[in-house]
Amino acid sequence: MGYQALNENTVLDYMKNLPSLKNACEFEDGPTAREVGDGNLNLVFAITSQSNPKQGILVKQALPYLRVAGESWPLTRERMRFETQALILQYELAPGLVPKVYHHDDEMSLVVMEYLGDHEIMRKSLVKRQRLPRFADHISTFLARTLFCTSDLYLSGPEKKALQAKYINPELCELQENFVFSRPYMEAEENKWNPEIDAQVQAIRKNGPLKLAIAEVKESYMTHAEAIIHSDLHTGSIMVNTDDTRVIDPEFAFCGPMGYDVGALLSNLILNYLSHYAHTPDPRERSEYQLYLLDTVREIWNGFAAKFETLWIENNTGSLPPAKFWDFPEGQAAFAEFRRRYMLRLLRNAVGHAGCKMLRRMMGIVSVWDITSIQDLHQRAVAERLAIKIGSRWVTERHQVNGIEDLIGIVQEETKRM
Amino acid sequence: MGYQALNENTVLDYMKNLPSLKNACEFEDGPTAREVGDGNLNLVFAITSQSNPKQGILVKQALPYLRVAGESWPLTRERMRFETQALILQYELAPGLVPKVYHHDDEMSLVVMEYLGDHEIMRKSLVKRQRLPRFADHISTFLARTLFCTSDLYLSGPEKKALQAKYINPELCELQENFVFSRPYMEAEENKWNPEIDAQVQAIRKNGPLKLAIAEVKESYMTHAEAIIHSDLHTGSIMVNTDDTRVIDPEFAFCGPMGYDVGALLSNLILNYLSHYAHTPDPRERSEYQLYLLDTVREIWNGFAAKFETLWIENNTGSLPPAKFWDFPEGQAAFAEFRRRYMLRLLRNAVGHAGCKMLRRMMGIVSVWDITSIQDLHQRAVAERLAIKIGSRWVTERHQVNGIEDLIGIVQEETKRM
Repeated sequence: MGYQALNENTVLDYMKNLPSLKNACEFEDGPTAREVGDGNLNLVFAITSQSNPKQGILVKQALPYLRVAGESWPLTRERMRFETQALILQYELAPGLVPKVYHHDDEMSLVVMEYLGDHEIMRKSLVKRQRLPRFADHISTFLARTLFCTSDLYLSGPEKKALQAKYINPELCELQENFVFSRPYMEAEENKWNPEIDAQVQAIRKNGPLKLAIAEVKESYMTHAEAIIHSDLHTGSIMVNTDDTRVIDPEFAFCGPMGYDVGALLSNLILNYLSHYAHTPDPRERSEYQLYLLDTVREIWNGFAAKFETLWIENNTGSLPPAKFWDFPEGQAAFAEFRRRYMLRLLRNAVGHAGCKMLRRMMGIVSVWDITSIQDLHQRAVAERLAIKIGSRWVTERHQVNGIEDLIGIVQEETKRM
Repeated sequence: MGYQALNENTVLDYMKNLPSLKNACEFEDGPTAREVGDGNLNLVFAITSQSNPKQGILVKQALPYLRVAGESWPLTRERMRFETQALILQYELAPGLVPKVYHHDDEMSLVVMEYLGDHEIMRKSLVKRQRLPRFADHISTFLARTLFCTSDLYLSGPEKKALQAKYINPELCELQENFVFSRPYMEAEENKWNPEIDAQVQAIRKNGPLKLAIAEVKESYMTHAEAIIHSDLHTGSIMVNTDDTRVIDPEFAFCGPMGYDVGALLSNLILNYLSHYAHTPDPRERSEYQLYLLDTVREIWNGFAAKFETLWIENNTGSLPPAKFWDFPEGQAAFAEFRRRYMLRLLRNAVGHAGCKMLRRMMGIVSVWDITSIQDLHQRAVAERLAIKIGSRWVTERHQVNGIEDLIGIVQEETKRM
């Protein structure tokens, strides 16, 4: 059968014809299918039991165009191959932190996976000021394991290059290259921003030192092939509940800079922090939750750095450099210093990416629900102006950052007058 | 016909059966074939006119093992695909500076190309103190054009990634990763060095700060996918005469750091400089030629930097970033500063690679003919000790280099007592 886009009826027929998954949709009261996608890129169907909508299976199918822009913006369905292989790889490296893939069909550009009926998109939980006591631990494990285990620190040169070849992903890379690192900061028809912050947006677009810094951060995105990164790890790509964390939607995965994943996550937590100036009017309630978010930022980095380094020490099997390279009297001290400097470069790179990711959400094609859900444009501008200040400083001051407290310090300095 | 290794007889039969090149070997006095390879990796046949050995054609064929090490060291013949496509690409980008490819046969792992009967391997010319008045201009053009035109500064993201995918070259990359950046500096059975410099070699192998710096330079080789680089651009990969320059042997080509090509070239010129302490006993003759070599180093970098930047300004078509990104009042100044910082990073990276390339030639599997041709081990050690001092400083002081004079200054400081 050739490709055809499914709908809520045909998806059930499709599932019935999969012998291996026949039982997965055989609920006592019969299955029901609902389209649950966010509408940006793909069709997403939840097939659940009619009486218990938490029990079920998920079917995700790529459309041959960018759904949010319509059929006039073609996008090859090949992205589903990247998503599927990344889901399988990440599940293998970080089991329990990624939905399990049950079936994939390259011709149909479709993947069938675990349905997360008990979970919610993380952004929504954060806007509701929910606390996720296990999240920092989970996500720092996901980051440490997926990034370390696909890098030259763990793999041999040929192993790494075989992986890199499978993840050359020009089309989706180009979306990020354009919409994170270039077009938000220049005149481009798709850009949108709150008219209340027009002066700030225009100032960014003609700020020479900042744009130079953004171009340098973009260079690292385009050329630093360090590990297979998720490459879209914002809080809309994470499903959570108080016990569990799952990273979804890795179709942008490619061999890129580790700092991009870390930066995406941290910047989205701070965007949520800023959104509470509107979402949480009570000052005490707000500052308590904001402190919780800063603690989460700190815990994620510290957890990530510690786990990454432990993995490295215990599995120093890669060729960058071979373990035996450090086999001399002061070798362990030199290896420790190599690690320390590596982690510092990673943090600085993450801060640069975090800054770009924050800025682009204020003035590019893709905004962020935490903030656009603030109805009052004047109130919304309060958060947005701070995001622009913090994002700009993160980008331009990234080389002066020496630890996670410096990144948090910039947030505190810019928000202390609120 | 399947693969079979050719010899001086069968190569003539092979050529006779190529209709398109039938005439190329039809000399009045009949063709003669000689195996002229250096014996490291491949078979190389010069097919020339019997009476005029400067007229002819060249046939290069890969063997399924590392020739220098014997049949026990397998190496896939796929490297000939990398060599052929790189020769064709580089010829297109730098016409007249690369031998022209007439024919290639993937099944036979073979390429037929222009024969350079009037040229000599550059190392040999330099040991004879030959001056090559057009070389710096030629090679800086080769570097500027091949590196710029295969980078994100010139290409769109998808164009660059299509090129990168064609040049994923794990096997030959691994040779450099091992034999330039790791194994010379640790215990490895294939390492060889002059017993006279044993103390210096042992000191390098336990020098923590130096080894840390080497590991960081190796990281850039393994992860910085900036452009399609030649990746073995020493003076044994360049054929010269007073008028002409041709870059050969690009089988190591892959998408890597631009500084590696620049560094390989500069370090080999300085190794030749040092070899004249033995090859040229007359102090005046020696210092004149050494000054010429330093001038050449200076001219290469300055020529390269100027041509690279001119190409960039005149062909700012890449996506790093799009030209329109600089379209604001201070934009041209910001673009100029982006270029200045880019070139400085490139130079510093080149200095790091140059240092590693110099060190490895003193203590790894691959030595350098300029220096090993010095028969007297004591005399040879004079050049080698200087190479170790200069190489070490280039690697560890690379971040302090602010221009080509700083790199030359280190050579002058270390050699001034000679």
